[in-house]
Amino acid sequence: MTSKTYNVVSLIRRKRDGGNLTKDEIQYLIDAYTRDELPDYQMSAFLMAVFMKGMNDEEASAIAYAMLHSGKVMDLGSISGIKVDKHSTGGVGDKLSLILAPIVAAAGVPVPMISGRGLGHTGGTLDKLESIPGFDVNLDLKRYVEVIAKHNLVFIGQTEDIAPADKRLYALRDVTATVECIPLIASSIMSKKLAEGIDALVLDVKHGSGAFIKDPEQAKILARRLVDIGTEFNKETVAFLTNMDQPLGNKIGNWLEVEESIYCLKDEWPDDVREVTLLLAGSMIQLGGRADTLNDGIEMAQATINNGSALKKLREIVIEQGGDVSVIDDPGSYKPASHKTEFTAAADGFVSAIDAYQVGMASLELGAGRKEKTQPVDPSAGIVLHKKIGDKVKKGETIAVLHTNKQQQFDVALDLMNQAYSIADKPGEIKTLITHVVDAKGIRDFDYNEVPAL
Amino acid sequence: MTSKTYNVVSLIRRKRDGGNLTKDEIQYLIDAYTRDELPDYQMSAFLMAVFMKGMNDEEASAIAYAMLHSGKVMDLGSISGIKVDKHSTGGVGDKLSLILAPIVAAAGVPVPMISGRGLGHTGGTLDKLESIPGFDVNLDLKRYVEVIAKHNLVFIGQTEDIAPADKRLYALRDVTATVECIPLIASSIMSKKLAEGIDALVLDVKHGSGAFIKDPEQAKILARRLVDIGTEFNKETVAFLTNMDQPLGNKIGNWLEVEESIYCLKDEWPDDVREVTLLLAGSMIQLGGRADTLNDGIEMAQATINNGSALKKLREIVIEQGGDVSVIDDPGSYKPASHKTEFTAAADGFVSAIDAYQVGMASLELGAGRKEKTQPVDPSAGIVLHKKIGDKVKKGETIAVLHTNKQQQFDVALDLMNQAYSIADKPGEIKTLITHVVDAKGIRDFDYNEVPAL
Repeated sequence: MTSKTYNVVSLIRRKRDGGNLTKDEIQYLIDAYTRDELPDYQMSAFLMAVFMKGMNDEEASAIAYAMLHSGKVMDLGSISGIKVDKHSTGGVGDKLSLILAPIVAAAGVPVPMISGRGLGHTGGTLDKLESIPGFDVNLDLKRYVEVIAKHNLVFIGQTEDIAPADKRLYALRDVTATVECIPLIASSIMSKKLAEGIDALVLDVKHGSGAFIKDPEQAKILARRLVDIGTEFNKETVAFLTNMDQPLGNKIGNWLEVEESIYCLKDEWPDDVREVTLLLAGSMIQLGGRADTLNDGIEMAQATINNGSALKKLREIVIEQGGDVSVIDDPGSYKPASHKTEFTAAADGFVSAIDAYQVGMASLELGAGRKEKTQPVDPSAGIVLHKKIGDKVKKGETIAVLHTNKQQQFDVALDLMNQAYSIADKPGEIKTLITHVVDAKGIRDFDYNEVPAL
Repeated sequence: MTSKTYNVVSLIRRKRDGGNLTKDEIQYLIDAYTRDELPDYQMSAFLMAVFMKGMNDEEASAIAYAMLHSGKVMDLGSISGIKVDKHSTGGVGDKLSLILAPIVAAAGVPVPMISGRGLGHTGGTLDKLESIPGFDVNLDLKRYVEVIAKHNLVFIGQTEDIAPADKRLYALRDVTATVECIPLIASSIMSKKLAEGIDALVLDVKHGSGAFIKDPEQAKILARRLVDIGTEFNKETVAFLTNMDQPLGNKIGNWLEVEESIYCLKDEWPDDVREVTLLLAGSMIQLGGRADTLNDGIEMAQATINNGSALKKLREIVIEQGGDVSVIDDPGSYKPASHKTEFTAAADGFVSAIDAYQVGMASLELGAGRKEKTQPVDPSAGIVLHKKIGDKVKKGETIAVLHTNKQQQFDVALDLMNQAYSIADKPGEIKTLITHVVDAKGIRDFDYNEVPAL
């Protein structure tokens, strides 16, 4: 809170003309906006000016600070250990939170995880968890602390108390074409994560066709901003840049992704999911002080799979949060979608490219996602991929199976799948998954030789 | 009105990314905004995007068209003759409308003049006219047509019926730092002028320290935009670029400017006022079809001064609109401000520069202007300049006399005058007043040799 008042028009004008605002000026704008003393129309003009002219490091930290302190900042000091969370910028088929959170918790590092819902082509961790019958993500902040104290793990949604300014600002950006702005994205992510009461944070910043930010250079800028803000707030923060040129794993949808996650925890994983999950989990275990090196962290993560403690942790938390653990123990007992259809190859060849965005949109059309924030999602709808980039296909062979309870949606979904898959004479190039790592020391290429455990 | 609806966020995004909108898309934005179906916060984000990325000719015309048709468009077809108005981008001491409108009307060209009020450092024609006791500028549109039919002249203020979208948009721009944007300025001016029912328009686009737009290059761009929009609407439009590096004439204030105008109509004028007034009046007479050339128009304008018909026309309209004509006949009978003080030279030398903006602000502080739209103005307050650029001064000699009814304001006004005037060893450079002319054929340097009558 700042008691000084400023001339808002002159602050907008300064940003419009490429100038910078002080920490106090930004604090004033966010405070006044949260108190309803600054109208939406001035904030949206300011946001568009920020979109055009950017923000420097101090401004991005200042806006993150102001949004963080617009609500409750959790204190997990009563819980021993270094609390570590993960955030991903999101992608199609990204169920990594469901797998790595139990792994890291099983390795002895507390994971306080506040997640979001899906919108558009990407899914959300909360929607996936809620596909488990009875699973309750709407815990209040008291229960949040109790559950993490008991299990080293908790999964909840963003409450009204956490960074309310971010919630309002995000809603305004959504309707004023000011979403895709790196300092605003960075401060939005960090204000929510810092409010959780974490000590350290691992970030998965995706680029490529299936990612929110397609351009790797932009992703690097975002990763540096995120790490800079975390460092500024004295939270050890590491970001990995990962490639998202096709969906992650083989299953897309809510329950379908939970099901795939259960198999991953039994060491039956798609290569891409294994690689990124173990990387992020290993880094979280390292930041949590349970491993000296990233490679040691990855080995510990793999050990929780091998000894069954990670899957046991998932069972524990499902039971704690009211979920039906029988579907975890026997995924085959889950009520499937009423209709299935196959998407088949139109010609012989190789899968040369998959537009993950189109696959995500197909899944949405089948019922797994939502176009607007208040829409319900279908837990059993989604897509199972049988072929990914580089795979050989024969004409008529099954590429994917589409699951839905709304049969009439097959046409539009199949059309999107058709747009998504490219079949060519040669197999497509499979890109390196993990490209860069960013920490307080700066950005560098990721070196696979340093992590033989991967 | 357009019946189609558009996705507003995608329109904002397109402008944000430097793209262009179609005529229908712009029409939709303005219509929806006028109907309260598009919220202020989306419009302000759009306006900031326009500020940053500009608009092409088609877009500027489209927004002018949409704003024009948001209200009543006057039809003056019942009045014979080519109706011509003038618009100035405004400056300190600019009382030209008061002088040229009677001149042009006396020359037989109907002048339907809808004017504005002063704000900040510049005065407004309505405030000046209202300093004449009883003068009523609030005529309805029926009386507007009657008065112009009778006198070839009428002075009124913008009514609620004229371009209401412009009124709302301007108010929003004022509080979101999106005022100084050429396509928005141009469409705002033209939507109001075109609604008057004119056939032709003469524009005075000022640049220099006392003008709204200081940079001559920006003024050229604005002038071209204004002429392009007028031409697009089949109204013959000519713009003159004029230099405003010091106040126009010797008197600043409401009644003080009326008084100076009366003397001008008696052929007793400051050189700068005479030159620009006769130029603009001559051009209006030419566009009104009463003269073949600009020089002929200027000669006809001068003739209305010489034969007394212009002053007679001013008397007529003052009487018609309820004003006390005795102050026109005997300006000395006007009740002066209660207090006067002299601003004197601090040293021997020459006036090398006058910052017209500071002089305008001094006049405002004395009571002649307003800081906020609803503030009343003092009719008798203002400043009489005794020295202008190039004049020799001796230490202690009177440079200007300040008039006010609020004696306590002298300190702040004198301080502003002190900042406004520069005294140097050499006289300042007196710049050419009229620099360029713009019409449908393009922009060219103004050639004084073509107008010996000036």
